[in-house]
Amino acid sequence: MKAEIIATGTELLLGQITNTNARFLSEKLAEKGIDVYWHTVVGDNPSRVEEALRTALSRADLILTSGGLGPTMDDLTKETLAEVLGLPLELHTGWQQQMEKMFSRPGHKMTSNNLKQAMVPKGGKLIPNNFGTAPGIWLEHQGKIIVLMPGPPRELEPMFLEEVLPNLPETDSILLSRVLKITGMGEAAMEDSIADIIANQTNPTIAPLAKLNEVHLRLTAKGKNKEECLRLLDELDQKLQARLGNNIFARDDETMVDVVAELLFAQKLTVAVAESCTGGLLAHTFTNIPGSSDYFHLGLVTYSNQTKISQLNISADLLAAEGAVSEAVAKAMAVQVKQIAQTDFGIGITGIAGPGGGSPEKPVGLVYIALAAPDQVSCRKFNFLGKRENIKERAVISALNLLRLYLLKQSG
Amino acid sequence: MKAEIIATGTELLLGQITNTNARFLSEKLAEKGIDVYWHTVVGDNPSRVEEALRTALSRADLILTSGGLGPTMDDLTKETLAEVLGLPLELHTGWQQQMEKMFSRPGHKMTSNNLKQAMVPKGGKLIPNNFGTAPGIWLEHQGKIIVLMPGPPRELEPMFLEEVLPNLPETDSILLSRVLKITGMGEAAMEDSIADIIANQTNPTIAPLAKLNEVHLRLTAKGKNKEECLRLLDELDQKLQARLGNNIFARDDETMVDVVAELLFAQKLTVAVAESCTGGLLAHTFTNIPGSSDYFHLGLVTYSNQTKISQLNISADLLAAEGAVSEAVAKAMAVQVKQIAQTDFGIGITGIAGPGGGSPEKPVGLVYIALAAPDQVSCRKFNFLGKRENIKERAVISALNLLRLYLLKQSG
Repeated sequence: MKAEIIATGTELLLGQITNTNARFLSEKLAEKGIDVYWHTVVGDNPSRVEEALRTALSRADLILTSGGLGPTMDDLTKETLAEVLGLPLELHTGWQQQMEKMFSRPGHKMTSNNLKQAMVPKGGKLIPNNFGTAPGIWLEHQGKIIVLMPGPPRELEPMFLEEVLPNLPETDSILLSRVLKITGMGEAAMEDSIADIIANQTNPTIAPLAKLNEVHLRLTAKGKNKEECLRLLDELDQKLQARLGNNIFARDDETMVDVVAELLFAQKLTVAVAESCTGGLLAHTFTNIPGSSDYFHLGLVTYSNQTKISQLNISADLLAAEGAVSEAVAKAMAVQVKQIAQTDFGIGITGIAGPGGGSPEKPVGLVYIALAAPDQVSCRKFNFLGKRENIKERAVISALNLLRLYLLKQSG
Repeated sequence: MKAEIIATGTELLLGQITNTNARFLSEKLAEKGIDVYWHTVVGDNPSRVEEALRTALSRADLILTSGGLGPTMDDLTKETLAEVLGLPLELHTGWQQQMEKMFSRPGHKMTSNNLKQAMVPKGGKLIPNNFGTAPGIWLEHQGKIIVLMPGPPRELEPMFLEEVLPNLPETDSILLSRVLKITGMGEAAMEDSIADIIANQTNPTIAPLAKLNEVHLRLTAKGKNKEECLRLLDELDQKLQARLGNNIFARDDETMVDVVAELLFAQKLTVAVAESCTGGLLAHTFTNIPGSSDYFHLGLVTYSNQTKISQLNISADLLAAEGAVSEAVAKAMAVQVKQIAQTDFGIGITGIAGPGGGSPEKPVGLVYIALAAPDQVSCRKFNFLGKRENIKERAVISALNLLRLYLLKQSG
């Protein structure tokens, strides 16, 4: 079954919005084993919408459209499809009543234009829209399935998941993906260490993708059903895990802080942080997790030498001798904030986020990250590349990773 | 001049990535007055790439492609185009040498596949790529312009802006957009207050877009040249400014914190913050600005009652009597952090970010934001909707806006 996704809307062609509907629909269709061969975007223009529909009807078995179902003259996907297929439009009185109800709220007025949205091409089925006035249309015609959906993602996505996807034909095989997230090694080193696995691997396939401070491996299995795909993914996952070990820090939608928070919750441990160059991003990341007050007690953003002295009791002599960006100061920050907040762990970060403030000895991107644990104080030195926000982000991921590796060592 | 944008890449059809290149190119072409009529996406498949190219050559004057210029067998945009146009491929020795230089770094090895990237269809011009090994191609053929560019946005975007856009033909009229960013009023109230302007407005057009805590008005002017467009935009901008006043907080790419930082820099003023529910996001936002250590001195993330007492000297009695989420505690946080850091301003934020921790009296989304200024202490109560991260973000924007309005009042 070959599918084509058509989006209509001049705002797409003007670059005012991105065609995220095509990505969403493609991902869901791939998971179901339906091959998408084309994405097409045309403006709100009758002859080009007609051309796009005729082309799709000539080459695809399944056609999904988004947009062009609104009440205005510009909205013409349904009318054009009806014309192309030679089908009359009929009023759907159920939806008409539904709309009259929606418009009965104070401040809303239904105009005759709105009735256009309750029209259905003969033989088509109306798909209700729980988040707007434009219903979708499901039409089967000469062995093809054509589904029209509204453009706004908050309307299209639930409609597709609840009313369209379950009704699409089953396929012989489906695709299922899993993403392994790796940190602590570069893309080249990672590929080297698993080169023989990649070379002999056909199902699941392996696709690496380099991210900021992380490498993602996307494993995609093809199988008769979900169980078979899961078995294939688990097998390969175990092989990769054996090679890459704790460098794999998360899978799929899980993030670094999710993993660290889980470890802290499970072991009932607490943390406090003292940040300089990351400016609060580590505290913000820790506190993005619901219930984080169980493990996160205090964050100090000591952005000047003066506040490092007054808030963290770091000696002016140490700052003068070593400089604020130094291993000694990072360690002192970690130890002091742990002491002040009476937590199990303290993290101290000091560095140069740039773009100014660097020197030959202490360049932009130099960051010291210290971890004060119950039994030891350690520090690592990093040289991060990138812009100010990238350096902040890399430092935070690295700090979380230091804590993760410590917690794994303790529990393992 | 009609343009078509073709993206090739199976990862697009699998929904693994979004076609952001089409949006980027469309926006830049619209600004130049070139009409984009079609976006097309096909996979790494020779016959479908060929079909897409043939169709585009039959209907468009300008064809821009992204992707399919890599070193592997899957990368076939250039080879397919050469075949469709009947042009032989010729080795570009300059680029060959350039590639040999790139691959001479330790850990890199050039394979014979890579040479494929130095081939150019006869009559075509190579466009250098400063961020990767795949150069672009500019080809003029029978009155049409065809430009091939690499897929990764970090390679395509600079190549297009520097090497392609300036060489495209001039048009009779161009489009120029400006975005006004508005906060402190809802979309409906905003539209009401400028309804008569919108109703009579044809050039520039006005398109409102609701964002988290902000409303954007996109003004798009059509004119003979940049000067005419700017004049039209300035005229309408002034009309809207007269109605919406300080609710307009920024234009185009400028953000709320950019504006606040500018005001602080200009008046040489300093700030410290004490955060509870925003968990460091306000400090992080303040410190995203290069040079922010000039105005930002201290951030305290007091995430527990105990640290509010120990770090901010807030009395246990006050916390017990009013609760941590209260106007009195927000004000005390602002006053204390200003005092501790010896800054001109202190900001205190306390609230319930959820999803847990709410009650009928103090629901999720309740946030108090206090501003301690040199001459007064004020506090505002908010009830934000949304998920945990949305509530944090809305609170931070609102806190920055309180400071912005105070600074404007002082300077105005």
